[in-house]
Amino acid sequence: MRMEGGTSVILRVEMDKHAVTFGELVSLIGQQGGDIVAIDVIQPGRKMEIRDLTVSVAEPSVVDTLSKAVSIMKGIHLVNVSDRTFLLHLGGKIQVQSKVPIKNRDDLSRVYTPGVAKICLAIRDDPNKAHSLTIRRNTVAVVSDGTAVLGLGDIGPLAAMPVMEGKAMLFKELAGVDAFPICLDTKDTEEIIAIVKALAPTFGGINLEDISSPRCFEIERRLKEQLDIPVFHDDQHGTAVVLLAGLLNALKIVGKNIGEIKVIVCGIGAAGVACSRMLLAAGVKHLIGVDKDGAIHRGANYDNEVWNEFATLTNPNNETGRLSEVIGGADVFIGLSRPKLLNREDVLKMNPDPIVFAMANPDPEISPEEAGSYVRVYATGRSDYPNQLNNVLAFPGIFRGALDARASTISESMKLAAAKAIAAIVTDEELNEEYIIPSVFNDKVVPAVRKAVIQEAIHSGIARKVPGDFRNLE
Amino acid sequence: MRMEGGTSVILRVEMDKHAVTFGELVSLIGQQGGDIVAIDVIQPGRKMEIRDLTVSVAEPSVVDTLSKAVSIMKGIHLVNVSDRTFLLHLGGKIQVQSKVPIKNRDDLSRVYTPGVAKICLAIRDDPNKAHSLTIRRNTVAVVSDGTAVLGLGDIGPLAAMPVMEGKAMLFKELAGVDAFPICLDTKDTEEIIAIVKALAPTFGGINLEDISSPRCFEIERRLKEQLDIPVFHDDQHGTAVVLLAGLLNALKIVGKNIGEIKVIVCGIGAAGVACSRMLLAAGVKHLIGVDKDGAIHRGANYDNEVWNEFATLTNPNNETGRLSEVIGGADVFIGLSRPKLLNREDVLKMNPDPIVFAMANPDPEISPEEAGSYVRVYATGRSDYPNQLNNVLAFPGIFRGALDARASTISESMKLAAAKAIAAIVTDEELNEEYIIPSVFNDKVVPAVRKAVIQEAIHSGIARKVPGDFRNLE
Repeated sequence: MRMEGGTSVILRVEMDKHAVTFGELVSLIGQQGGDIVAIDVIQPGRKMEIRDLTVSVAEPSVVDTLSKAVSIMKGIHLVNVSDRTFLLHLGGKIQVQSKVPIKNRDDLSRVYTPGVAKICLAIRDDPNKAHSLTIRRNTVAVVSDGTAVLGLGDIGPLAAMPVMEGKAMLFKELAGVDAFPICLDTKDTEEIIAIVKALAPTFGGINLEDISSPRCFEIERRLKEQLDIPVFHDDQHGTAVVLLAGLLNALKIVGKNIGEIKVIVCGIGAAGVACSRMLLAAGVKHLIGVDKDGAIHRGANYDNEVWNEFATLTNPNNETGRLSEVIGGADVFIGLSRPKLLNREDVLKMNPDPIVFAMANPDPEISPEEAGSYVRVYATGRSDYPNQLNNVLAFPGIFRGALDARASTISESMKLAAAKAIAAIVTDEELNEEYIIPSVFNDKVVPAVRKAVIQEAIHSGIARKVPGDFRNLE
Repeated sequence: MRMEGGTSVILRVEMDKHAVTFGELVSLIGQQGGDIVAIDVIQPGRKMEIRDLTVSVAEPSVVDTLSKAVSIMKGIHLVNVSDRTFLLHLGGKIQVQSKVPIKNRDDLSRVYTPGVAKICLAIRDDPNKAHSLTIRRNTVAVVSDGTAVLGLGDIGPLAAMPVMEGKAMLFKELAGVDAFPICLDTKDTEEIIAIVKALAPTFGGINLEDISSPRCFEIERRLKEQLDIPVFHDDQHGTAVVLLAGLLNALKIVGKNIGEIKVIVCGIGAAGVACSRMLLAAGVKHLIGVDKDGAIHRGANYDNEVWNEFATLTNPNNETGRLSEVIGGADVFIGLSRPKLLNREDVLKMNPDPIVFAMANPDPEISPEEAGSYVRVYATGRSDYPNQLNNVLAFPGIFRGALDARASTISESMKLAAAKAIAAIVTDEELNEEYIIPSVFNDKVVPAVRKAVIQEAIHSGIARKVPGDFRNLE
């Protein structure tokens, strides 16, 4: 069931055909837990032959023992072992392409000097034209300082690049958005704000990514105030949108009303705050945030200023105590915290038909085995369990819509509309405990999110442009 | 001969076929100075038809009179007139592409989570790996603040974008370098330095562009000191490399030795300083810089600190006076100043076989007509005269070489090597007064410049990697 640990490697082997048969090699690799999925003959020969064998293994640890066994086989020289994921990353994962070729002087004079001068002057005279005459119309910066990357923590801007490149790929592949990674060699809040502000002429939107809490709040808030293009911290809002989408569908299954449920949000960092805000905006009245010190409540005077504000917006009965003390009577548990924080006893204290979204990375707050039949609807962030709540469902369509409508911001109501659109892709006939959210490869997702975002942007006056396909809709 | 002013437009016309024939329309357009180069039928019909006519005109001013004449023609409705250069710029000129598709969960798990985590950790543990496992290996930032764009001056970062996008196209099309435009909404020297430093984890090189003097000197100098990747202000060094290449070949024609000539450099801004330094490095002993106040000389105490330093390096006889007073006995005039600054009388004071490189934009310091037969070798920055000294000849190959050798900087000796490589492309048989420099479309240029830059980088210890094709050369 666990596919996350699966990997594949490429073994380059030099075979002495007089000493060993290919069948013997295949058998050995099979015995060692490897599955040959592709063969490329690199250098054919009657006696010696070099082949690349792509071998899939269930666990990375198998690679070492398998390689060892192959290397000592008679008639075999193991030239090298390459990890497919590493090979894929050689030279990076994205490239910059010209949209038109430059083949002759005439082309050159239009895309560059002297022809480009009149485009420059048109924009100087009317800066609005930059939106149509430059890449700004379709380009988003994926900005990170590398301080909170995946579950790996502060690994720095160089090490964050592969994630930001991957994100740029998803923007393009799923939504046609040109995204470019910008990994910053500074952790200073003021400097990050100044840099992103200064970068704005190049970009039509800013996707903040993997910036640690609480700096991410200040950076996003200030940039939203000061820029007239969308600024969106995906770890907060992408996660919040997808969680809400999943919750809307889960509530349909259990037949509960969003205004009447008690929700525990465990882990009040960047994502926890954003999810809680989104749930409140969607109609949740009874929400309690829990972090290291227990339930966040009024009168506690936290060092983290965000928690003090959080306390004023949540926990209507001002409950106190640890997770196990406040989870009684809860309908929904949302975990954005640490592996194995929730146990079966806690679940048993919840109301009937409990909903558990256990999003901790890489292992959820409660394993599906321990949740078992005690949880009615169970979801995680992982691709190897049902109900993967993955923010890849949200950000491509949200930015596609925001760019197409030339939205000046991405508002709470636009995010709410996106969540509802994602939820609505699962039909009533399809909806069940193991299918509350569409797959990231469902090609209805991006168009539906885009449409919802644009409609709401037009409705609320945030759109500065009505896209062609919306002009006859009203 | 002047092609620079030529342009083409697309006229969308609705034709009433009963009232007018297409032949009549073609005749009218021809009479008005237009040349139909392409026809697209947009909406065919028996009575009414809509066509797009691509019309080439010699002068932009013709477009208005031609459009007017078409619009009042009987049976014709002129729907709109689109400029081809504007159409080409719609949505910008570059895009970001994934190198591999993301078609399924297996792809996603390699390019993004969870597979990407091991790439991130490998870089965290050895930051050098970022060069091979991210786009850094092949990616250059084209950074501008929009203060000195083409000949247009301070038009701002939004209006500068089309130039930087065009530059990114040239990087890719000519040398396979992924370049991305970064137009900054700040003119503050310290802020620009801080921003570019912070952006370095994303890029393998920095091409500074169209930043006004004297800030460009300080910005480049400090960034070169503080970053371990190449930083190259193209307006200075690209221009200098190409001028030197042209001069080396021009000197062959007139049979003079570089150590014995007197050179006047007119216009001591960013490019003038860089060109002068490069000429001195190449062996010129007698060089005089001339700017608004006349010949730059020792003892003048200029406000511009760069000029005071310049005076110590040049003008061995400490000559003073205006251009016409110091040009006597000069062998070479290099203009990087203003149109029409040099007249025939000045040329007549020069030594026999004068060489004049008149690079002012858009019109040279002396027109080819006025220079006439009085100048032996005449070159400009323009594409419509012979001997176009265009820095498109330099920067693509220089960065290609620097990236391939993982050079930490682009040194004077690497630039010198590049200039010699460009000059050497013109063979002795080909060399003549009207052909001292290869065309920007000569496909020998980039490989030759790359090779020279890599060899010099290896030779001088600046290379941090020996490219595969250089490993067996020594």
